[in-house]
Amino acid sequence: MGSVYGVGLGPGDPELMSVRADRLVRGAGHIAFFRKSGRPGRSRAIVDGILRHDVVEIAMEYPVTTEIPLDDPAYADCLSAFYEQVAGQLRKLAESGEDIVVLCEGDPFFYGSFMHLYTRLKDHVPVEVIPAITGMSAAWTATGIPITWGDDVLSVLLGTMSEDDLVRHMAAADAIIVMKVGRNLSKVRRALEAAGKVDRAWLVECASMLEERAVPLAEAGDRASPYFSIVIVHGQGRRP
Amino acid sequence: MGSVYGVGLGPGDPELMSVRADRLVRGAGHIAFFRKSGRPGRSRAIVDGILRHDVVEIAMEYPVTTEIPLDDPAYADCLSAFYEQVAGQLRKLAESGEDIVVLCEGDPFFYGSFMHLYTRLKDHVPVEVIPAITGMSAAWTATGIPITWGDDVLSVLLGTMSEDDLVRHMAAADAIIVMKVGRNLSKVRRALEAAGKVDRAWLVECASMLEERAVPLAEAGDRASPYFSIVIVHGQGRRP
Repeated sequence: MGSVYGVGLGPGDPELMSVRADRLVRGAGHIAFFRKSGRPGRSRAIVDGILRHDVVEIAMEYPVTTEIPLDDPAYADCLSAFYEQVAGQLRKLAESGEDIVVLCEGDPFFYGSFMHLYTRLKDHVPVEVIPAITGMSAAWTATGIPITWGDDVLSVLLGTMSEDDLVRHMAAADAIIVMKVGRNLSKVRRALEAAGKVDRAWLVECASMLEERAVPLAEAGDRASPYFSIVIVHGQGRRP
Repeated sequence: MGSVYGVGLGPGDPELMSVRADRLVRGAGHIAFFRKSGRPGRSRAIVDGILRHDVVEIAMEYPVTTEIPLDDPAYADCLSAFYEQVAGQLRKLAESGEDIVVLCEGDPFFYGSFMHLYTRLKDHVPVEVIPAITGMSAAWTATGIPITWGDDVLSVLLGTMSEDDLVRHMAAADAIIVMKVGRNLSKVRRALEAAGKVDRAWLVECASMLEERAVPLAEAGDRASPYFSIVIVHGQGRRP
């Protein structure tokens, strides 16, 4: 029986992969990765140039769901069927004796797509998960300002949440991370204003990558890159 | 002019250091690290066996403050004077042309001691910060359960907070991390009970280290190791 390795690759810079992830990727005979239809795949791009020449690549292409509303049960059904299918494919391969490295952006257990494979595979084949540097760690590092001091409470929010929920959580936390900002930037900005924290906010795009950009939100304009854009409010806790 | 590198080492397993951190540590001519008086130092222990034979080691020993209450201004003054002194020492060394690698447990900008050096050095000498895998990533990986799904809100709390504050934040969040649990375990447990989440909580000690232990909080008993003990409540968000 082979194993499935859910390997966190970190925020994007290949040098920020862990020593263990780097070794597993370089030695892999089979890799699998998610990608959108017709795209090269963001996790696949991170490991470009360090793979074995004879590696077998399994591209797990998301079904096209743009015509289904996110809250339509058909959307979840479509994704569920997809995850079942690719999990079955990996399971079969592992049962035939092959190890498979699944490439995961960021940390596999932190809002990661791998989790949908993990829950379907873990009771059937050996699965090992390798934690990784999160995109938010790379983002706060890019601002050059520490994120949490002393007893600061950090809350991680999603730009897809309702404006009211955003305001409520932003008001209660000392340090704030908002992920999935992209097209939600205006809403996130209004919520920060309502919570009285917009003046301290930063926008970070593509942290740790060549295109990295970290600026105070006031200077960021009205657009954020659709991927990997994170809004940050740093904590102000005690510091001797 | 030399540079100061704030190098995150991750949660404890040397294999979870980043490729970049690993290279910087192996090549370092000068390393500096915090430790308690008379102890080897927890960050120093992570890199044991991979240092250059001629490396110069600078142990930054915390002053003994056990007789000063934490809320006494004398406590902050004592620590502040200590950070000033060691920052001055590193600054002098960098100005003499030496690069210095400061060893940091976890991620340097996430509740890290290095932040106190960083704020004192960054306007005087080049300082570069290398993000790392946090202790909490290793802790949720150790439970074998993903931490956040869909739009789950994650809040990071400290066991040193008041019980009322803990309850309020625990009630509002979907996924919860409590750091600095140690001698605050009973208070953290009571707060989780009050927030109706104690049944889903886990205790993780020494994540990624040989002594790693991850158990449901109900089976954990009344004691937690003083270092690196983290309480986790996993999010229950949508999952196709």
